Amino acid sequence: MSSSPSGPARWQKLAQSTLAQTRVFELNSIRYRHPVRATERDFVVAQPPDWVNVVALTPDHRIVMVRQFRFGIDAFSLEIPGGVMEAGEDPVAAGLRELREETGFAGTSARLMGSVHPNPAIQSNRCHFVFVEQAQATSATEWDADEEIEVLTRPVAEVLELAHAGGITHGLVLDALLFFERIWRSRAAP
Amino acid sequence: MSSSPSGPARWQKLAQSTLAQTRVFELNSIRYRHPVRATERDFVVAQPPDWVNVVALTPDHRIVMVRQFRFGIDAFSLEIPGGVMEAGEDPVAAGLRELREETGFAGTSARLMGSVHPNPAIQSNRCHFVFVEQAQATSATEWDADEEIEVLTRPVAEVLELAHAGGITHGLVLDALLFFERIWRSRAAP
Repeated sequence: MSSSPSGPARWQKLAQSTLAQTRVFELNSIRYRHPVRATERDFVVAQPPDWVNVVALTPDHRIVMVRQFRFGIDAFSLEIPGGVMEAGEDPVAAGLRELREETGFAGTSARLMGSVHPNPAIQSNRCHFVFVEQAQATSATEWDADEEIEVLTRPVAEVLELAHAGGITHGLVLDALLFFERIWRSRAAP
Repeated sequence: MSSSPSGPARWQKLAQSTLAQTRVFELNSIRYRHPVRATERDFVVAQPPDWVNVVALTPDHRIVMVRQFRFGIDAFSLEIPGGVMEAGEDPVAAGLRELREETGFAGTSARLMGSVHPNPAIQSNRCHFVFVEQAQATSATEWDADEEIEVLTRPVAEVLELAHAGGITHGLVLDALLFFERIWRSRAAP
């Protein structure tokens, strides 16, 4: 009915081999040994760089959003700006960079709201969530080749309602809004 | 500064080839053509089955949690029960099955709270979130080979606090708690 008295074991990582190397992640097979049973087994792990997503709030309390065609789901998706961090890059700096490149917006008081593991079962990386205030359009966008992004802003209440009602389906964007919603509610509290 | 007047284009899916076939997902290269520029490009997409996660609430307002060693991050992770849906399986039925297999708990009033795309950019599947009430331990667990799970229950307030404070790092589990938190707050409201 519950776990063994000693609890789940920490497996020992032995070695890994590459199954596939793609533009977005390395797919590896990692061999682990159980410390008690001494059995060995291979587990598949995707190893992308860390990612960052940004909640950028304008002076009139709107959130900067992006809408783009997403090849993973073969459909459009309404999201907040974000992308892949560069090696050694600070999450806040990366968030400000992605915000600028994707939307042309810049802001102040950028800070880290929280971080998650997108999928601890089969994926090694983290996704960081950055909160930027006083966001304003200040520069031209710098899209990658084949990147086409509709940039829009929406009132905070509308974005949070969309998040809860299924209008925003990107799981990591919803994570960012979970962290943001608490900040927002604490400010709105009487 | 913003998107082109016509907005982002819907690319046309042409063909796909398999890069790797693993136990947890198929990794494909999908060729797309831009409808205006007529350029073609290959995008990497992971195609797992759909997943399901379960917020199971006990009669004394505790949430059923699982703690296990996660090979993706080479560390322990505190989560809610969940797993891979079977082909053609209903999300609610899948949630109740995973709850029973992983924890031995069963409940009533199971319903779908919401669904997300874990990563629309590079992954095709969805993750569904099921809410189960009156959850009680009723049967033995049925773990897969090499699955070792510590089953525990924690008060709702403590789980939500952990979620916001970084004590729960699984992005999809936090999504489930985002949907649950709104239900919970609506009930607690005077």
